[in-house]
Amino acid sequence: MYKLYENLKNYSTSGIYPFHMPGHKRRIESLPQWNPWQIDLTEVEGTDNLHHAEGILKAAMDRAAFLWKADRSYFLINGSTGGILSAVGAVVRPGDMVLVARNCHKSVYHAIFLNQLKAVYVYPEWIAEYGMAGGISPKKVEMLLQRYPQIRAVILTSPTYEGIVSDIGAIAEVVHHRGIALIVDEAHGAHFNQAGFPESAVSMGADLVVQSCHKTLPALTQTGLLHLKSSLIDRGRLREMLSIYQTSSPSYLLMASIDAAVAFLNKEHRAFVEYERRLDSVREEISKLSHISIPGREFVGKYSVYHVDNSKIILSVCGKARSIYNGKWLYEKLRCEYKLQCEMAMEWYALIMTSVMDTEEGYLRLLSALKKMDIELDNAVNEKEHIEMSEEKEDAWELVDMSWERSSGTEPANLTIAEAFYAEKEVLSLALAEGRISGEYLYLYPPGIPLLAPGERISSKLIDKANVLIKQGFELYGQSEEGALLVCKEMTGDQ
Amino acid sequence: MYKLYENLKNYSTSGIYPFHMPGHKRRIESLPQWNPWQIDLTEVEGTDNLHHAEGILKAAMDRAAFLWKADRSYFLINGSTGGILSAVGAVVRPGDMVLVARNCHKSVYHAIFLNQLKAVYVYPEWIAEYGMAGGISPKKVEMLLQRYPQIRAVILTSPTYEGIVSDIGAIAEVVHHRGIALIVDEAHGAHFNQAGFPESAVSMGADLVVQSCHKTLPALTQTGLLHLKSSLIDRGRLREMLSIYQTSSPSYLLMASIDAAVAFLNKEHRAFVEYERRLDSVREEISKLSHISIPGREFVGKYSVYHVDNSKIILSVCGKARSIYNGKWLYEKLRCEYKLQCEMAMEWYALIMTSVMDTEEGYLRLLSALKKMDIELDNAVNEKEHIEMSEEKEDAWELVDMSWERSSGTEPANLTIAEAFYAEKEVLSLALAEGRISGEYLYLYPPGIPLLAPGERISSKLIDKANVLIKQGFELYGQSEEGALLVCKEMTGDQ
Repeated sequence: MYKLYENLKNYSTSGIYPFHMPGHKRRIESLPQWNPWQIDLTEVEGTDNLHHAEGILKAAMDRAAFLWKADRSYFLINGSTGGILSAVGAVVRPGDMVLVARNCHKSVYHAIFLNQLKAVYVYPEWIAEYGMAGGISPKKVEMLLQRYPQIRAVILTSPTYEGIVSDIGAIAEVVHHRGIALIVDEAHGAHFNQAGFPESAVSMGADLVVQSCHKTLPALTQTGLLHLKSSLIDRGRLREMLSIYQTSSPSYLLMASIDAAVAFLNKEHRAFVEYERRLDSVREEISKLSHISIPGREFVGKYSVYHVDNSKIILSVCGKARSIYNGKWLYEKLRCEYKLQCEMAMEWYALIMTSVMDTEEGYLRLLSALKKMDIELDNAVNEKEHIEMSEEKEDAWELVDMSWERSSGTEPANLTIAEAFYAEKEVLSLALAEGRISGEYLYLYPPGIPLLAPGERISSKLIDKANVLIKQGFELYGQSEEGALLVCKEMTGDQ
Repeated sequence: MYKLYENLKNYSTSGIYPFHMPGHKRRIESLPQWNPWQIDLTEVEGTDNLHHAEGILKAAMDRAAFLWKADRSYFLINGSTGGILSAVGAVVRPGDMVLVARNCHKSVYHAIFLNQLKAVYVYPEWIAEYGMAGGISPKKVEMLLQRYPQIRAVILTSPTYEGIVSDIGAIAEVVHHRGIALIVDEAHGAHFNQAGFPESAVSMGADLVVQSCHKTLPALTQTGLLHLKSSLIDRGRLREMLSIYQTSSPSYLLMASIDAAVAFLNKEHRAFVEYERRLDSVREEISKLSHISIPGREFVGKYSVYHVDNSKIILSVCGKARSIYNGKWLYEKLRCEYKLQCEMAMEWYALIMTSVMDTEEGYLRLLSALKKMDIELDNAVNEKEHIEMSEEKEDAWELVDMSWERSSGTEPANLTIAEAFYAEKEVLSLALAEGRISGEYLYLYPPGIPLLAPGERISSKLIDKANVLIKQGFELYGQSEEGALLVCKEMTGDQ
């Protein structure tokens, strides 16, 4: 009778191991034995009110604030998305200029759209070997704040989807020097501060920090926390924004699961120590392979050294095998042949997302699979020895027109996201879109970071990149059909 | 260890009967036996993607669309709130003018704020006997559309929180005559179309209809459906808005529960027939009481006749007893003495929210309590026979300055919600706020309908009303402290 439930249960019991979100890993036997209906209450006497918390919800949120040493912590039940929209909404006015890391999640772009903001993008360092975004340099942030003194807030993601951590302490210092607020999307870092994992942005000086509970902790999907530790934030406005972007009927089940995740962190220190030890040994085993590599614990960038969150295992085909197989191959091979579901695949890597709830069996299955795949890669390389290793590693982010950052005021400015959204548009094939202003997003999900945002000028390199990704079987999400783009009719030059 | 869970479980097992949301009424034994963690999945191969649905989620949403005969139906996992924000966002541009029923839920005001809209308010008819808002008159809508031809969309609530149904067919006709879209907040009407319950707005001509699943159906809290049946809506924009206002990590558990509610509607016709029969007999029993009344199945307004949803039981102290006891007394008496929790209390009534999941035991406990209370009221009336029945029934909605509707262009216009939000403000005591422009909302929760919205001029009658409500023990929610209001510094006349 319950078809969607049956679909999900069938998937859940199919034996596919979840090296992906949510962080509870569906370990039913070790998770709270809750009947979802029993605690699915509403705002009546004694159950408090999330948007005006004074009772049991206030106490639960205070437990979270105490753990992170935040001034206040707020439960998020519309995911980190709701937290990002609220945090940005609380610090800007329509038309403001903000400094935004270009590898932010699409919810940040949505906040830019909703508040009609002008975005100056700061580009993360590029890690060519893995073809992925690295950290944000404090120096770059400082330079851009100097160049654009009208910037009203700084928004960035740390850790990234792949676990790259920026130096939030140094960034907070240059941001606070200007008297403005730093918002950090720490969606993938709710397990920070535990064992040897990196320090949370909350204790590094960020003003507002958004965490997702379900990504790395045993919590139900679509839960999160927004931590406030700042004297720069108007709490009334923040609360107002939270009540705008989050339903007036919040799920007590989701909220109970946030509280349970906080309790888990408070109580299970040893589990995290054990977890990190296990990750180290998995890392060591993988590093013995010949054709599959995993990055070290830090990346040395041009401007900074960036720590890597141990919990994310970035698998890459390396050496000569790379000319034959890519990240998608790793992902599909693990999935179809070994029933190990990765979180995602990008061009050059597959991402294994672990959590404290992963089992010994899961890691053993992974290592066993990788060893067999390594042998397969070895055979493939020997067969095709004549093939040269491809050195071409394109930079997905640098492909994108840097728009505000690049425009020195003399070039015609591109459009804000809101301007592009409301502009008259037309659909063009990718081949014809070069030089036009995009009217839509183009992104892979996961991770949901736009390769192209509305208002950006479409470069030939971006089109090439999109074509490569489509050819490799990636699904590019946008509003219009595959192979086509919605572009703005205005400001098209000679079109 | 799980404190919030324990708090909720203790409440849930305390024997208090839930005559309130959610509609599943926590009838564990009759509800699907789901382990919440088992089906709490994420977007991987085979589980589809809510924001780009093509697989099992698309199929589930198609089942909903089929049931309501909609062109498309969308799952909502950020409550009706997310549906309202998305529906409005899909049909307006910043600065547009919209026609809005003044008794809309605060999410509609939030949509007005976010899109910087100018709102023309249409006031519902006033039901003096119960001191509550009635339906929206099609004639009033037509008149306002004529007066303000620049209106881009019409947004109203039907049924109301108390179950008053407007004539959506007639309203849709006058709205479509102007070539614009009608958005109906049918949050309290997901059970419509069943048995003898009223017809859904989806089949009455509304373009976009937002329903809450958990309010009247056996579904988990914070779930809903957005139905599209129109050629006036840009589906790409609607989908974009849904992906802005709803998390990119939607809960599969919540989505499975929406699908289960749809399946329930498809299968349990007889349960609804039985439910309505039971409601009729409860109604009949209550109507035999001397001092507690319940409205009939329709209200005859000045302009229209409005149907009443049978599922909402509006209890009111009537006759002479009214000079002694009010809605708050009914609510508190039922709660404290009989362990029957109503959905809410307003000045003159208490609201019993039933659903198809209510038990015979619940109704019997209610009737037994009401009979005892009726005797108590009888005694009280006999003791205080000298007290005259109070005839004063103030009109909460008409107290509010009608702002856009009233301003004919010659008076100084009030501010839009967005203008007021971003204006410089100061906190004043209620007594001093008269004549000033409000900088905040003032509302009771439930139902979460603003008595005062930012940008409206504060009348002396509103202040009187607020004082009465505070004195009666109602909690008025606003940003500033009790007894004080945030007012705009601008446009204050001689201040």
